[in-house]
Amino acid sequence: MRSLRIGLAQINTTVGDLDGNVAKVLEHAARAGELGVDVVAFPELTVTGYPPEDLLLRDHFVLDNKAALKRIVEGTLRQAQGVVLIVGFVDEEGGEIYNAAAVIHDGRLAGVYRKQLLPNYGVFDEMRYFCAGVETPVFEIGGIGVGVNVCEDIWSSEGPTRAQALAGAEVIININGSPFHAGKGRFREEMLAARAADNAVAVCYVNLVGGQDELVFDGGSMVFDERGELIARAAQFEEELLVCDLAVTKEKPERAGDGAPARIVVSGASSSNNKPTVAPRVAEPLGADAEVYAALVTGTRDYWAKAGAETALVGLSGGVDSSLVAAIAVDALGAEHVVGVAMPSRYSSEGSLADAQRLAESLGIELLIVPIEPAHAAFLEMLERPFASGEGDSGAAEENVQARIRGNLLMALSNKFGWWVLTTGNKSEYAVGYCTLYGDMAGGFAVLKDVPKMLVYRLTEHRNAIAGRDLIPRSVIEKPPSAELRPDQLDTDSLPPYDQLDPILEAYVENDRSLEEIVALGHDEALVRRVMAMVDRNEYKRRQAPPGVKITPRAFGRDRRLPLANRYRGY
Amino acid sequence: MRSLRIGLAQINTTVGDLDGNVAKVLEHAARAGELGVDVVAFPELTVTGYPPEDLLLRDHFVLDNKAALKRIVEGTLRQAQGVVLIVGFVDEEGGEIYNAAAVIHDGRLAGVYRKQLLPNYGVFDEMRYFCAGVETPVFEIGGIGVGVNVCEDIWSSEGPTRAQALAGAEVIININGSPFHAGKGRFREEMLAARAADNAVAVCYVNLVGGQDELVFDGGSMVFDERGELIARAAQFEEELLVCDLAVTKEKPERAGDGAPARIVVSGASSSNNKPTVAPRVAEPLGADAEVYAALVTGTRDYWAKAGAETALVGLSGGVDSSLVAAIAVDALGAEHVVGVAMPSRYSSEGSLADAQRLAESLGIELLIVPIEPAHAAFLEMLERPFASGEGDSGAAEENVQARIRGNLLMALSNKFGWWVLTTGNKSEYAVGYCTLYGDMAGGFAVLKDVPKMLVYRLTEHRNAIAGRDLIPRSVIEKPPSAELRPDQLDTDSLPPYDQLDPILEAYVENDRSLEEIVALGHDEALVRRVMAMVDRNEYKRRQAPPGVKITPRAFGRDRRLPLANRYRGY
Repeated sequence: MRSLRIGLAQINTTVGDLDGNVAKVLEHAARAGELGVDVVAFPELTVTGYPPEDLLLRDHFVLDNKAALKRIVEGTLRQAQGVVLIVGFVDEEGGEIYNAAAVIHDGRLAGVYRKQLLPNYGVFDEMRYFCAGVETPVFEIGGIGVGVNVCEDIWSSEGPTRAQALAGAEVIININGSPFHAGKGRFREEMLAARAADNAVAVCYVNLVGGQDELVFDGGSMVFDERGELIARAAQFEEELLVCDLAVTKEKPERAGDGAPARIVVSGASSSNNKPTVAPRVAEPLGADAEVYAALVTGTRDYWAKAGAETALVGLSGGVDSSLVAAIAVDALGAEHVVGVAMPSRYSSEGSLADAQRLAESLGIELLIVPIEPAHAAFLEMLERPFASGEGDSGAAEENVQARIRGNLLMALSNKFGWWVLTTGNKSEYAVGYCTLYGDMAGGFAVLKDVPKMLVYRLTEHRNAIAGRDLIPRSVIEKPPSAELRPDQLDTDSLPPYDQLDPILEAYVENDRSLEEIVALGHDEALVRRVMAMVDRNEYKRRQAPPGVKITPRAFGRDRRLPLANRYRGY
Repeated sequence: MRSLRIGLAQINTTVGDLDGNVAKVLEHAARAGELGVDVVAFPELTVTGYPPEDLLLRDHFVLDNKAALKRIVEGTLRQAQGVVLIVGFVDEEGGEIYNAAAVIHDGRLAGVYRKQLLPNYGVFDEMRYFCAGVETPVFEIGGIGVGVNVCEDIWSSEGPTRAQALAGAEVIININGSPFHAGKGRFREEMLAARAADNAVAVCYVNLVGGQDELVFDGGSMVFDERGELIARAAQFEEELLVCDLAVTKEKPERAGDGAPARIVVSGASSSNNKPTVAPRVAEPLGADAEVYAALVTGTRDYWAKAGAETALVGLSGGVDSSLVAAIAVDALGAEHVVGVAMPSRYSSEGSLADAQRLAESLGIELLIVPIEPAHAAFLEMLERPFASGEGDSGAAEENVQARIRGNLLMALSNKFGWWVLTTGNKSEYAVGYCTLYGDMAGGFAVLKDVPKMLVYRLTEHRNAIAGRDLIPRSVIEKPPSAELRPDQLDTDSLPPYDQLDPILEAYVENDRSLEEIVALGHDEALVRRVMAMVDRNEYKRRQAPPGVKITPRAFGRDRRLPLANRYRGY
């Protein structure tokens, strides 16, 4: 029985930080060497970070990426003798670029694999940049046939994995930048197990970890044996070097027929045959709410770290959304890097300010209190004459003025102290436009932008359960939601109850269902029409919204690209 | 000599307005019939409007589009007997969709062509939606071989045009949704002339006209004979039915060899052989500044019309940007649908308010005057305590407060009266972040978002030249640019002079040039570094900017997709 010690280096790269990414690769390669690893694999586009988007259109960026790869190749001589590295980078030939994996050993670039299946749906635009590869080489590492491929490549049962298996690969190493959405992990695991068993190859899946703008990568790297049994799994949302011994039980396969691609010999017989085997780690996947919460914390933490800020400012209304955002911010940045500001108005209830104070105390964060009455009164005075000719309307203008005074205050504090504003709206509100552009939508990052209101409640309870106490006060959770922009206002004055609204939004926004299909799910037709109209009408607001963490199969933003001027009415 | 009377119906479709687009097609087909036209062609994706973006992911939208096409087919029996129609629509087969052209005659769908070359760069995401067609049928219309293809198809010298010519097409009808940028017309014309001459086919190019979100389509449909000579050209930025007689001088070609696709007979011998020939119209293309000005007017007019608003509100500072925006708004919507508002502060010069008043009078628009002092004083009072601990900074926080008070006022008026706000920033300001998020960036449409400051001046002079007077007052044009957010402030306190800034921005933003390359153009290295850093640092602001009209080869927005968290420093 031959064996290979595999290392899956699930690291948190940063887009554009070529030097930082190179250093991280070499550091993990060195650790892998110390652990007797034969081959260590890194996530998709390791060198550039993922996704680099239109940086890829710059010739000098691609050149810099190639120079960075060269530093990794040379660095292995000093830092990772004997270890084979699989590293994602941008390959270039004749003016075309490829999403590629380099196979590196002892100061030598032994081979390159170019991604064949380029995703161009959802959040992905890979055909905007890359040419598709056409070759499926098999690399011989420690006497074992290894096929390397990239992310999407393994999702097709007809793809390169099969070609590589047929050409003699016993092990497939698949490097990924696979964005998180709730529940995706199980789907991935089932697909990978099937791919391994169907092709009788071991499958090593290494995923990126960390946040990048609206995307969060959840790690959860996995190894399956050739029967499709899971033998190792890394944690979600944490950097990890997952190490395991892969026993290749079969004799050297002779599947490769005439015309199969030549095997590229990378390294000699595995040294791990003589090493004591390592106990494979099989981390437990997080529960449904826990993984979403972790994604939000990761997305927030990394946006601050990678875009270059320390402290977050959160407007605290005493409501459940802003309270959850503050809790996430504390978990992401530490209480000393979170500042709350309460901005009560003439319409705020006493309970609201008290709840904001209780929350700040519970989280241990600083709380500023800036009543907005002076500016509110000034605006009403300034607008008295211009508004005099206004017909008796709903009062939305007067309500929004208050939200925008708060937006202005938040941004003033942000500009003065370098704090970045976390906005507090949730997906249900963004969907139906129950939010004020430049008011409560003002800020650098909208943590809950993809979190429907009912899930906001579940995440709040989840966080409190972990704390073992009402970290977010019970009074915050239990009061009826209100924007408090006029006396005795409630969300239900304008919106259906969230337990009716959220399922309709999921059907329309995430699943592109038609009116008839949504009604067939059991919803009231008039209500469905009303909700669809609200969603359509508010596209312009969402276009100017800050980025937020994608946690569903379809988030607002690059995931859902709709025209603003759009006369299509599906209701 | 055989001949074909061609009609190119350069119409202004609306995305999602299937009924409106169907009506417009039938109306133009009827007019074509009255003019003795044999074949009338409409722009790309006529039925759905272009580009429909993620509406294409909805099954019911694609079904509705097919039903709309059916109404056109049936309508030809009543409204356009004897005329062949070429109509863009979304074809569907086996769950895949195609960007297609229907060939329709007397109540019959005679054939379909599916676009082969799908653009997936710049503003285009066609691979996100469409499958590429593979067949190149030749249609026999009035005894003449006609190849139909779609937009990008004709840009490749190896593309379907050549295949169709080799298969016996004597005439190519190419239907387009080709977005405008300054100077693109000449480039298009040269390409089309070459394509016609190289393949010895007449080329009929019909383009969409009108605005759709950030894109403007400039029409300018053209006909070339088989020697590549231009024989007809439609106006830019206007709907038009361009009619001309195409003389096919050669005898029936016998180029099609074995294995060539069968000719699909659509209609019998042309009736136009017996008609008096029509004098072909050759509209003169607009000059460089005139076409940009027309694009801005068209983009603004159509965004208001298609997204559903009547009146525009413009904050008038007395500066050149807001004055030009007001002039464009008046040309787009009429003076009665434009309202100006001057919002002087304690730092506004006397000249500013006087200039705003002079401009409003010159344009004949209503002007509101709302001094911001009450809110300004209130904010300073509210911020006194929170700001007390602030280090001595640049005062940017205090400056932005004023801009955001103005943003709040504009939006309050917008909310109260249903006016939409036109923002006034230009591309130079958006590029370097010399603008306030939620302040002067607040609004529904940023007319000058893609217009560099030096071009703002040229457009102003252009508009005054047309008016034959200083429609935009000379004092507005000649004063040094200032944001007037602190005493005696000038743009040049923070920025290099615009005649130095704009060429650096063009090289970096539009052409992706590196530091070394820009310096090699003759710019000061320290200045280039500073400008590149400002551009990179302000990506987050642009992400929350309103849409604006694309008039350069690369606009901010979908045309330039950069990560927010991005550590790449090319300087």
